[in-house]
Parts: sequence; structure tokens; C-alpha cells
Amino acid sequence: MPTGNMIIAGTPVFGGGKRVRAVDPSTGAELEPEFGHGGAAEVEQACAAAHEAFAVYRETGGEQRARLLEAIADGIEAIGPALVDRAHAETGLPTARLTGERARTTGQLRLFAEVAREGSWAGARIDPALPDRTPLPRADIRQRKVALGPVAVFGSSNFPLAFSVAGGDTASALAAGCPVVVKAHDAHPGTSEMVGRAVAQAVAACGLPAGTFSLLFGSGPGLGTALVTDPRIQAVGFTGSRSGGLALAAAAAARPRPIPVHAEMSSVNPVFLLPGALAERAGQLGAEFAGSLTLGSGQFCTNPGLVIAVDGPGLDAFLESAAEAVARTEPTTMLTPGIASAYDEGVSALAAQEPVSVLARGRESAQPNGCRAALLSTSAKSFLDSDALQQEVFGSCSLVVRCADVAQVLAVAEALEGQLTATVHATEQDHEQVADLLPVLEQRAGRILFNGWPTGVEVGHAMVHGGPFPSTSDSRTTSVGTLAIERFLRPVAYQDVPPALLPRAVADGNPDGIWRRVDGELGKH
Amino acid sequence: MPTGNMIIAGTPVFGGGKRVRAVDPSTGAELEPEFGHGGAAEVEQACAAAHEAFAVYRETGGEQRARLLEAIADGIEAIGPALVDRAHAETGLPTARLTGERARTTGQLRLFAEVAREGSWAGARIDPALPDRTPLPRADIRQRKVALGPVAVFGSSNFPLAFSVAGGDTASALAAGCPVVVKAHDAHPGTSEMVGRAVAQAVAACGLPAGTFSLLFGSGPGLGTALVTDPRIQAVGFTGSRSGGLALAAAAAARPRPIPVHAEMSSVNPVFLLPGALAERAGQLGAEFAGSLTLGSGQFCTNPGLVIAVDGPGLDAFLESAAEAVARTEPTTMLTPGIASAYDEGVSALAAQEPVSVLARGRESAQPNGCRAALLSTSAKSFLDSDALQQEVFGSCSLVVRCADVAQVLAVAEALEGQLTATVHATEQDHEQVADLLPVLEQRAGRILFNGWPTGVEVGHAMVHGGPFPSTSDSRTTSVGTLAIERFLRPVAYQDVPPALLPRAVADGNPDGIWRRVDGELGKH
Repeated sequence: MPTGNMIIAGTPVFGGGKRVRAVDPSTGAELEPEFGHGGAAEVEQACAAAHEAFAVYRETGGEQRARLLEAIADGIEAIGPALVDRAHAETGLPTARLTGERARTTGQLRLFAEVAREGSWAGARIDPALPDRTPLPRADIRQRKVALGPVAVFGSSNFPLAFSVAGGDTASALAAGCPVVVKAHDAHPGTSEMVGRAVAQAVAACGLPAGTFSLLFGSGPGLGTALVTDPRIQAVGFTGSRSGGLALAAAAAARPRPIPVHAEMSSVNPVFLLPGALAERAGQLGAEFAGSLTLGSGQFCTNPGLVIAVDGPGLDAFLESAAEAVARTEPTTMLTPGIASAYDEGVSALAAQEPVSVLARGRESAQPNGCRAALLSTSAKSFLDSDALQQEVFGSCSLVVRCADVAQVLAVAEALEGQLTATVHATEQDHEQVADLLPVLEQRAGRILFNGWPTGVEVGHAMVHGGPFPSTSDSRTTSVGTLAIERFLRPVAYQDVPPALLPRAVADGNPDGIWRRVDGELGKH
Repeated sequence: MPTGNMIIAGTPVFGGGKRVRAVDPSTGAELEPEFGHGGAAEVEQACAAAHEAFAVYRETGGEQRARLLEAIADGIEAIGPALVDRAHAETGLPTARLTGERARTTGQLRLFAEVAREGSWAGARIDPALPDRTPLPRADIRQRKVALGPVAVFGSSNFPLAFSVAGGDTASALAAGCPVVVKAHDAHPGTSEMVGRAVAQAVAACGLPAGTFSLLFGSGPGLGTALVTDPRIQAVGFTGSRSGGLALAAAAAARPRPIPVHAEMSSVNPVFLLPGALAERAGQLGAEFAGSLTLGSGQFCTNPGLVIAVDGPGLDAFLESAAEAVARTEPTTMLTPGIASAYDEGVSALAAQEPVSVLARGRESAQPNGCRAALLSTSAKSFLDSDALQQEVFGSCSLVVRCADVAQVLAVAEALEGQLTATVHATEQDHEQVADLLPVLEQRAGRILFNGWPTGVEVGHAMVHGGPFPSTSDSRTTSVGTLAIERFLRPVAYQDVPPALLPRAVADGNPDGIWRRVDGELGKH
């Protein structure tokens, strides 16, 4: 059970700042215990410990890191049903969903254990010496990737396990050899503490320095900015709002020594319905769409908040089906009172815009913090004329953009900001039009999916959960999937370094049997 | 011969702004012809053309890009001796050096042609569908990397060929599928135009859109900032001063949609002389060091501007030898009058600091813009107390830091800013001390070299020419070597995309026979 303590390098510390309690959003009731916010002093302690731990942890091999990640996964499972119960109480998310999210979280930790063991993250390259080359001999040059240093991770509100204390950012940073200082989200402090204890125990059980992991509670400049601007922090992982991500990116860029920020921020996840698909299965698409839209109160980064299609009987049938499904939707509890009121305000503001019509609203409820789904529509011309219509409303709200023809569909696609996902529903007869659309989407989204729905992000090797600004602050990477490890690494070259001093990844004889590029040629040599 | 024109999407354009002439720094004489600076209108034209070209160029395969890069290399060679002659007149660099630099430039273009053909840059990954997986089936997910978009390249003054119009930034951006808009350095406009024409001709000969390449002349906010803040530019490559790089990074971060800036800026390239090496070969090291210091008037990013060693007879012998060699040095012409006067001011300011002694100066000369080498020394304590002593003086100036013991050597290493290189001279008896030093250097430098000198950057697969801030603005990459291509790519995932619409890199059957990661397993499958 949670105690209200932060964890600084293995030690429980009750913060001396503001006292907060988690709120059960389904009842509005405050939960025990009280948590104390930390401040500059705790940031200082956690960062000093992380810096000290880095000297040891950066030198660990893939096997040691893999064991740590597996021990964390085991520890999270060992908490048992109490973890899911606490997360349910703090977030209002259904127990089944949280049980699945826990499996995703432990699966993610074990996947990064595999990645750490496999060793390709080291990016080993060897250009052997060419002493007889003319006009100049070539030195022996070897390259490997090393950990950046301590990483600050900001837990998100909407995935209390998978994007939180031991989520993808933490797993990939630890796999890369970086200590982690987590700032827990105030929406689920008890869940955070329970998972944080499992991480700290795994660190201790693996004989690693306690500073390899710390967990802080707090908010605002006193904690978040202090963490990002601490000179020992070398990178930041964040999942949350656009304003929050931009504030952290600005703080990081203003440091005397700027550091990279990987902020996953804002996306409306456009869904393109092409004529063939609408002709074939408009009604079914409408029902499926409503299911994706209302899943988890729409509190997903990849929630389908925008639908684009050519006007006509196909779109009418889709909207009829979608509106009917949305209107039947029972309200589901949102994560926090703040998110619920921001959702209500966002829907009202969008509906109040001159060229927007409300097609359907979900059922009302007397329960607190319920999400009443919203389906709205506008014309392509109005959409193209207004930046406001492209803003994300976090929750089960989607805007349908009616286009006069396929050219207008393309124009809307070209006007889109960067997105995490773009979805296309098409049949073979649509492929000619899709060929024009696809390159536009490739330039605007991190993931393109066909004949499915964007909610549900598979954790694997090929996944990209990223995309051009403002969906993230750095489109060159992903926050889900194994490529995420590269965010926390940098290359170092070793020129004529004596064999006895070479790191294992680039040592003679390839002692770890990893993939290496020798004279440009990939192999296990 | 140069005409004074910019090249905008294949068309010669004489800029309507300020008129400038190149200066022969060895005589101070102005060279024909006059060049006209461009401004906002030319930035607009070049970026519009690059944006239009991107739609076509991004879809080219590795083979087409390879042919373009090879055609550029051929074209540069075809200019013949006139190119080296013009570069010599504009920069004062010796003809032999420029001939070597031309070979390095064409070699670099051909190396990136190989990289483009080999196909690993596409980062292909395939996680096949698992329709029978429980509790949920897995979709088919594939990942490849795509080009970011048009890239702005800022040519540097000190490598008029290898880090300029068709240098490493341009070669890697073109290999990645990005059109390039170069801002030429005013120190060698004629050389820039001649190379630019070769690039534009290669673009035309390969049947690619003319906007794939443009070359602009200009300076300040009117051109440089306008280019970096043009919404169509998606990344920046820069080699130059710290102030210049930071200004571009700030402009890029302040865009409504920020973009990555790869600025290679400032480094003093510390050289550590360990006791065993000094005992064995102090005199030889002193002479070699002076050679590296004064090569090319010290106008290298990797010039050894800092020497760190324990005081004693070994260091005395090193300094005696180095001082003697420096004192014998004839002044060599610096690149521009501005660089020469900044060098003189930098040396004077450093020498005027209370705790700094001048050990040796090179010979004086009556010729204009000569670089008079400078060897200075200070104590470790003074160095640790003063940030000013760590600033780069661009040219043949180096500061020796005398340490009381090995612990002080480590303290100096730990106080260093980020560096492109760190050099260690050591024998086997020094290895115990090196084991403590190496992890400190790994965290501060992009390349660590033993028993050699940092000047001379091999262009290969394993090279890193990068490092922590302020040596670059982004330590996660390199500006020299084949890894540089990754700066201009981002991943995209394709989920359940119909086979007929999949890009070749992730198509069924691996049509290009490239390395791909299937279910995490690397192979040519």
C-alpha cells in the first residue's frame, strides 16, 4: 500500500512541500494517504545520486541491464491485484483495461531486456587500420554508442502504468544505460509509489547503485523545471499536453548546456474514409469508429479526433451509424476533474464555432467527471480557414470534415499539422487516390494505418509512436517500440585505442557476439 | 570561372543586395568577379523550388541518389585545376592541401553513394501480423525511415570544399533524400559557385528536379535567418563559430514548428600527456604536437588547443621541444582578414590573463593575415578557476595546463566542456591511470584517440565528428562519416498497409535485398 513517500535513491522521503491526495474521479472522494510534494532540495538529492550512479551504471553490459529490467517486471507483477485496484481507484479506468496495461508494461520491460541483450543498440562499427594506404595511412577507428547520462521522465496521466513510472521512457532509458529520475503524475501518486518501490527494490536486488532510480512528487517550476534544468540531467522524456511539453522544451533549450527533450504532445489522428470503403461498409465503419472514439473516454494520444471524407450518400450512412452509436454511449469516468472540465470546455468551444454542427452527443450522467462523447462536423472550407478547428480536445470528441471532392480531401491532408497517426479506410478501387494521399501522410504522421483504428499501440520493433511537430518535439524517433532506446545514446569513436582499453562492443574478437559493421559490412564479426 | 551568380534551382541569379568580392588573404587584394548577395526573395524562390523538388526527390531510391552523388563527384573533378587555383586564391590554403581536400570531398560523395545503395539507412523493420495471438491479434507493422525535407546547409570558411557547398552535410542530406539549399561562405564565393554549378549540372544530368539544389550568397538576418526560419526548411547543417551556431539554433527553436539544427561549433581538443609517454618520448611528442598545432594555421575544428600534463622533467622536455618548434614556425596565411585579426586578439587576450605565461611565439611576418603561432601555459588551479581559459582561439594557439599530480589531471578533465576530440598519449605503464581518465573523456568527447594527433578526420563508417555541447548542438550524431545520414531521416510505421502500396524498403520479398529487422532479427530477409 502507498505511504505517501517519494523514493530518492532507494530511501523513502516525505516531501515537505504542498500536501496532495489522489482523487477517485468516479466519486470525487479523496484517497488516503497524503503525499508530500518535493522541491529543489529533493531534485538536488535525486540528481546528485543519479549522477553518481551513472559512473557505475553506464559501464554495465546488456546482460546486467536486461536482468534489472526483468527484475522490475517481476516486481510489478509481484505487487498483485493491489496495484490494479489502486490504479483503478486513482484513475477511474476499468480494471480489465488496467490489467491489460500492466501486462503491456511488463511486456515492454522484458522487450527492452531482449534489446539490451541483443546488443545492436551499441551501434558497433570498426574501420580497421590501413597502415599501407597512400598518400596517408588510415588509423584504426571504432565506434560505439554510450548512454547520454541521467534522464528525467515525466509520467503521463492517461497510462498510469505503461507511460508512467516504469513505462516506455524509463524502460528504454535504463536499457540504454541511463539512470532515471521520474516525476510522478499527481493523478496517480499511489500507483506511482507502488511501482517506484518495485523499481527501487529491483535496483537493490541487482546490486546496482541506488541512485539509478528516483521518484519525485511535485509540480510547476519548483520541481518540473528544476529537474529539467539540473545540469546533471542529460535528456528528458515526456508524455502529456502541448503546453507542458513546450514549456519543458523551452526550459531545456535555455540551459547553459541544452539537452534533448522527447515530448509526445498533441495529435488529432486524422481518419480518411475513401469512397470505395464508404460504398462497401459505411455503416460498419461508423460503428467501429464510435468504438475507437469512446474507448477509455477517448483519453488516448491516438484517439481519432478528425474524420475526413467526400460528402455523399456513403458519408451520410457513416455519420448516421456513428451518430447513433455515439448517442447510445454511456458516459465513462475521466482521469481527473481537471481533464473532465477541460473536455467539457473544449467541446463547448468547438461546438460554438460558427461553421461547426453537433451531430451527436453521448448520454448525460449524474456521476462526476463523466465524459459525454461528442461528434461534430464542419466543411472542408471552414476547416481550411480556421487553425482552431485543428486543436486537440482530449477525450471522446471528433470532428468530421466534409469535403466537396477528392482534391479537397488532399488539401485538408496538406493543411494538417504533424500527427502521431493517420488512418486510411480504402478498398482496392481507392488505391489510385491513396497513391496521392500516402506521400502527404508520410510527411505528416509517424504511423499510417489502413482499415483499422489508431487506438491500440503495439509495443514491438517496428512501431513508431512519434511524428512531426506538434505531435512530438523531435520527429526523428519514437516513444514506443524498441527504436526508442536510440533517444538516450550518442556515438563515440575510438582511434588507435590500445586493445586492452577498448570497450567490449568494439573489442577484437567480438566477445559479446553482437552485430557490428566492419568496413561498412554488417555481420557478427 | 565564377560569374558572381547564385544558383536557384539551376538558374543563375545575380543578387540585388550588397556586392562583395573575395579577398586573397595572402595579399589583401580583391578578386574578380563581384558577387551579389541575395535576400528574402531569393530564399523564398530557393525554398519553394526545394519544396516542390522534395515531392519527387524523396521518392527516389538508393540507386538514383547514388548516381547523383557520383555525378557530383565526377563534375567536381571535371572542373580541373581551376577549382584548386580559385580556392587557393580565395583562402590562402596551400595547393597541395586543397588538392587533398578535393579528393576527400569527392571520396565523401562516393562513400555516401555506397551508403545510399546499401540501403541500411532505410532502417527497415517488419513485425509480421499475428492474427491468432491472444488476447488480441497483432497487426502487420513495418517501419522505414524517410527524408525529413529540404535541408539548409551553411558552408564553413575553413574547408572550402569538404565542409562547404558539396561537403559532408550536402552529401549526407542528398543521400537521405533531402533537397539542399546552401548558404555559401563569403570567404570563398568563387569556389562555391564553381562547385555549385557542378552540383546543379549533375542534378540536371540525372533528370532530377532543379530545385533539388540551390546555392545562395548573403549574410545576416536577411539571408541566414530567413533560410532557417522558412517553413519549408526541415533541418539545418552548420559548421562554424559558437555564436553563429547558437544564433541559428535559437532561430530554429523559435519557429512555430521548430526543426533540428546540427551545428558543429567549438572545441579546444584537449591532449593528455601521461607520465609514461613523457618519460619515453617527450621531445618527439613536442615536435609532433607543434606540427599538429601549426598545420593549416591551426584552422581546424580539431586543432589541439589544450595540453594537460603533470609537471616535472617530462613535461619540461616536451615544452622545450614544442616551444623550439613553435618559435621556428613561419607565419602562414589565415583564411580571411577577419579570422586573422580575431586570432591576434584572442591570443593577446589569453596572454594578458594574470595566470598565463607565453612560452613561445612563431616568427613574425610582414605579409598580411599571417598566423603567428602561440604556445602558452597556466596552472591547473588557474585553469579550474577561469572559464575564459577554456574558450577556443581559432588558429595555431594552444594552452598548456600544468598539473601538480594525476588527480589534478582528472579534475581538469572533469571540468572540460564538450569536445570534438580528446587525445591521450600513454604507454602501457600509464594504463591504470588511463582507465580512470577514459570514462571521463567518453562523457566529454565524440572521438578519443591514442598516441596520435586530432587534426585529420578520416571519412569512414566509424568516424564521429561530433560531441557534447558546445562542440555541437546535438551530441547524438556526427557531421563526418556515414552515420551522418541519420540526421536527416525520421521513422514512419506502416500498419496493415496493402502490399501493393508498401514502399520497397519494407515490401514483401525484400526487392532491394537490404538488411531488415524482421521480428527483431536482423537479416537480408
